[in-house]
Amino acid sequence: MLDFEAYRERRVLITGGLGFIGSNIAQKLVQYGASITIVDSLDPLYGGNPANVAEIRDRITVHVGDYRDPSLMKPIIRDTDIIFNLAAQVSYIDSSRIPFSDLDLNCKGPLQLLELCREQNPRARIIFASSRLVLGKVVSQPIREDHPTEPLSLYGVHKLAGEKYHRLYAAVYGMNTAIVRLTNPYGERQQLKHNKYSLPGWFMRLAQEGKPIQIFGNGQQLRDYIYATDVADAFLAVGQLTSTRGEVFNCGSGRSIPFAEMAETIVRVLKKGKIEYVPWPADYERIETGDVNFSVKKILKSTGWRASVSLEEGIERMDNYFAPRLRLYI
Amino acid sequence: MLDFEAYRERRVLITGGLGFIGSNIAQKLVQYGASITIVDSLDPLYGGNPANVAEIRDRITVHVGDYRDPSLMKPIIRDTDIIFNLAAQVSYIDSSRIPFSDLDLNCKGPLQLLELCREQNPRARIIFASSRLVLGKVVSQPIREDHPTEPLSLYGVHKLAGEKYHRLYAAVYGMNTAIVRLTNPYGERQQLKHNKYSLPGWFMRLAQEGKPIQIFGNGQQLRDYIYATDVADAFLAVGQLTSTRGEVFNCGSGRSIPFAEMAETIVRVLKKGKIEYVPWPADYERIETGDVNFSVKKILKSTGWRASVSLEEGIERMDNYFAPRLRLYI
Repeated sequence: MLDFEAYRERRVLITGGLGFIGSNIAQKLVQYGASITIVDSLDPLYGGNPANVAEIRDRITVHVGDYRDPSLMKPIIRDTDIIFNLAAQVSYIDSSRIPFSDLDLNCKGPLQLLELCREQNPRARIIFASSRLVLGKVVSQPIREDHPTEPLSLYGVHKLAGEKYHRLYAAVYGMNTAIVRLTNPYGERQQLKHNKYSLPGWFMRLAQEGKPIQIFGNGQQLRDYIYATDVADAFLAVGQLTSTRGEVFNCGSGRSIPFAEMAETIVRVLKKGKIEYVPWPADYERIETGDVNFSVKKILKSTGWRASVSLEEGIERMDNYFAPRLRLYI
Repeated sequence: MLDFEAYRERRVLITGGLGFIGSNIAQKLVQYGASITIVDSLDPLYGGNPANVAEIRDRITVHVGDYRDPSLMKPIIRDTDIIFNLAAQVSYIDSSRIPFSDLDLNCKGPLQLLELCREQNPRARIIFASSRLVLGKVVSQPIREDHPTEPLSLYGVHKLAGEKYHRLYAAVYGMNTAIVRLTNPYGERQQLKHNKYSLPGWFMRLAQEGKPIQIFGNGQQLRDYIYATDVADAFLAVGQLTSTRGEVFNCGSGRSIPFAEMAETIVRVLKKGKIEYVPWPADYERIETGDVNFSVKKILKSTGWRASVSLEEGIERMDNYFAPRLRLYI
């Protein structure tokens, strides 16, 4: 069991803190007595949702606003010890449709946050959320942090630039930054509005609504699904490291399964739903990355963190979370 | 000798075509009878200079404007076979001072050009100018195209994102793109206003003006200087390849010399100037990349191009070029 007592009374800023991962981090931090500030734009395109912090609303400070607004951010940054930067355009599929918004949110956003920290509070620790989609086609297994990066989406290019900013500000300005590179997170507090990311939640919704779950091809591509609370713990674990200088940490369950098995597990656990196999749409095949076997040795060695929620347990917990509040998420 | 006859009557667009490298490309293309359009903003911060095309002004079309303006670019792109994209913020030093301008020019600019091509003319060939500064600290010698990329400047991060865009648009949309990654270009038509890039020209100016040439440390770091007309030939050679799909080509002389030797060669060739050795400024050491030994095997093998102008000859040609027109460049 990881000890997060060091967060007691630490001043923590979570950008995108009403979203999927940000709110799971906030839920954890409240338990450890951190002083939590959230900035979230509640942009309807993304996963920000006040329901995600309903239980802890009176114990956190929430600013509904754009984290690219320097006048909003300056005073907040001055009063912060640790920043979890989760605000982002989060769909690789949308990134080709809204290339300049993706650039602005996923490059200008983190760059400005780093610049403001450098000016206002260079000792603040910044943990940046990145994605396996910086990698592109998988060319070596298992996927370590030094795997080549050849993104196949603008989302991936911009997340890669975001990573490089954090490495550069550490190398050149000595700032304390780190990068958490996620596989496929899912679970409680994820968005359920569309199928553009976090498919386990989307499939759960389809199953609950009695609609078919479609799988492209044979669904044998390997993926690594990691549960929401495990992801939150990973961010907290990396956030505790005081000497990271732009290091990248893979974050996944460390166990890869076929995409189809994820869908079948949902149907089995929920005892609902029906899977249909359909051909790959032509435009999807080019951006299919290949099997994902994420090495999570580095984060274990550096922080002691490892995933603890199995896929079955995760699906059950996700379903239990959403059952009484589904209408708030769709 | 390379044959560029294939450019006859080809419609070529050069963004940043009044600048250092763009105008050297234009000078070459005029010889081969290409139909040349230049878009250049003549932003006083950068190297765009009408003097660079004075001799060929009546044989080219020049639009003074911002290549990020879609209404300007759309009709031009529709009528173009090959695009050399040279428009950029070109100083890695300035990039930390104007981070958001660098982002806008060096990321949004090329992204928008690719988007416009994808919409208007997906068969256009696009050659993107990149820089050794995408690499950061040199970790293996000689530096091949697959050397790790860990930029130490925002300029480097944004050029890296620019490269990745071109690779992505090739991989996902099948567009015909290529990247030329330059070492240290110098020579005729370079800017001489300040010391932020292309130091051989700057040192030539100092020598001609009787001012001391300062070298940080012992000046023993290796650099690869490549002459303007060789660079232009390299772009033309890569631009002739019809099947590149986002490939990167290193472009350098293939011969590395100590920084100090470059300065000494200028003093020797010009028979003027005086070198002073001074300590490294504190903020420079962190971003010093280490010795540069560029491998140029790939471009030779793929196109037949190799550098032909020695440093001595280049300095002499540069000096001859600037002598009668120095006032137009300072």
